[in-house]
Amino acid sequence: METRIAGATREVIIGDERPTVLIGERINATARKSIAEAARTGNWEVVRREAVAQVQAGADIIDINMNVFGADEVALLPAAVRAVMDAVDVPLCLDSTNPRALDAALKVCKGRPLINSVTGEESSLKGILPLVKQYGAAVIGLTQDEAGVAGNADTRMAVARKIIERARSVGIPPEHVVIDCLALSLGADPASAQATLEAIRRVKADLGVNLTLGASNVSFGLPDRKALDRTFLSICMAAGVNCPIVDAAAVRQTVLAADLILGRDKRARRYIGVYRERAKR
Amino acid sequence: METRIAGATREVIIGDERPTVLIGERINATARKSIAEAARTGNWEVVRREAVAQVQAGADIIDINMNVFGADEVALLPAAVRAVMDAVDVPLCLDSTNPRALDAALKVCKGRPLINSVTGEESSLKGILPLVKQYGAAVIGLTQDEAGVAGNADTRMAVARKIIERARSVGIPPEHVVIDCLALSLGADPASAQATLEAIRRVKADLGVNLTLGASNVSFGLPDRKALDRTFLSICMAAGVNCPIVDAAAVRQTVLAADLILGRDKRARRYIGVYRERAKR
Repeated sequence: METRIAGATREVIIGDERPTVLIGERINATARKSIAEAARTGNWEVVRREAVAQVQAGADIIDINMNVFGADEVALLPAAVRAVMDAVDVPLCLDSTNPRALDAALKVCKGRPLINSVTGEESSLKGILPLVKQYGAAVIGLTQDEAGVAGNADTRMAVARKIIERARSVGIPPEHVVIDCLALSLGADPASAQATLEAIRRVKADLGVNLTLGASNVSFGLPDRKALDRTFLSICMAAGVNCPIVDAAAVRQTVLAADLILGRDKRARRYIGVYRERAKR
Repeated sequence: METRIAGATREVIIGDERPTVLIGERINATARKSIAEAARTGNWEVVRREAVAQVQAGADIIDINMNVFGADEVALLPAAVRAVMDAVDVPLCLDSTNPRALDAALKVCKGRPLINSVTGEESSLKGILPLVKQYGAAVIGLTQDEAGVAGNADTRMAVARKIIERARSVGIPPEHVVIDCLALSLGADPASAQATLEAIRRVKADLGVNLTLGASNVSFGLPDRKALDRTFLSICMAAGVNCPIVDAAAVRQTVLAADLILGRDKRARRYIGVYRERAKR
């Protein structure tokens, strides 16, 4: 199954036979104070620079989260989309749960963006899916619902199936739905990574859709986060994740290695090519 | 299934619910000139120091290969075994295809060592298995036979089954056979890693035995070998490898991370414990 995401001029195809697509996570006002501050003060140059840096580091799609406490996301999200489109031509991932902010951003966003995200909750399905359909976008479905983040693989699988079915019922094909099986902090619950891995394998085997993952939650609160993040990402890629949300600069080398090992980089062209580019700098 | 390997005073248990066991690869005269030179000149201090360094870096078992061109392995292997036993008390892995050298080494080796290795070839089965039985040792079975290293997972699986059956027929139980599905160079054949991975998954699912792997062959001839090695090792551990042959210092952090992710380190005690020890130094 192939998911096609597009910017103004560039298309990115997510699929199991292809190199892994990296969604750059760093323009995130919820997670990063410097981005929240830039958004609040209208300093879009910070956002533009962050977009360029991520694309140079290997990001294929740029996630934009403008959920700034006390500020108006309906105004900020389209403004940030414009800023990023000024700086780079890769496709965007609009990161919001607010239908009005998404609608405003979709109006100005060129190409076919990814919307991040819908959940299995009724209010989310009703608020987000009509926008996905209206703008011909693709959407990330989180495997959580009214009961919270499902603890085991069975319930995560059931939520994924529900989201895909509901999307289909409003005219959104399964290839426009990318599932996130949700990585939780290993520090809070050491068994959580296994539930995530099992959910990934089952969603891939039974539903065949493309899979994203915010892979850096897993190391929250633990020492040596980089080793944990890259190891977890390697294992999740082997299990079926093919468009993770990541800090591209931190994980690019791991992703290139995993793609080579998993047969997504025939003749090692990308692996060797990127190494040569780096050696030149 | 649990494989128990022992030194003079220390026992190591290999099993899927347990932390991954690391077999230290660095006392290898075939692969390393400094070790061959030390063996040739009888400078066993070099070998002792290498043993201590590997155990400090996290090796649970020490592999010893004394296949030195032009020298007498039948004399060298037991001498090296004595040197390593002088320095450390971990179990040993006697790395030779020469039954006479193995017999001489087994005579002096305390505990229950691992023999590295037997293959599916008639001459190897006939030469090695009687020694394994006689000394109550365990053995690594390589999935290759007269036809060479099998290209696909089916034939590797058949060779693994053959070795386990032949061992059983001479009184060696399956838990004393550890299978190596063989990692080849990705540079020579980019599809080879997938065949290795599929073989690992199938041997684990169908035969249930413990699995080793010489995981650093995979990066031979490619740039940034460390990134490739640790990524491959992570993925192979998730597939079922639980006692790889490695440079412990290079991969320890990856192995600790993977064990935590794969549920082999309850409450993150080892992961955090080793981090604290390192921070103290």
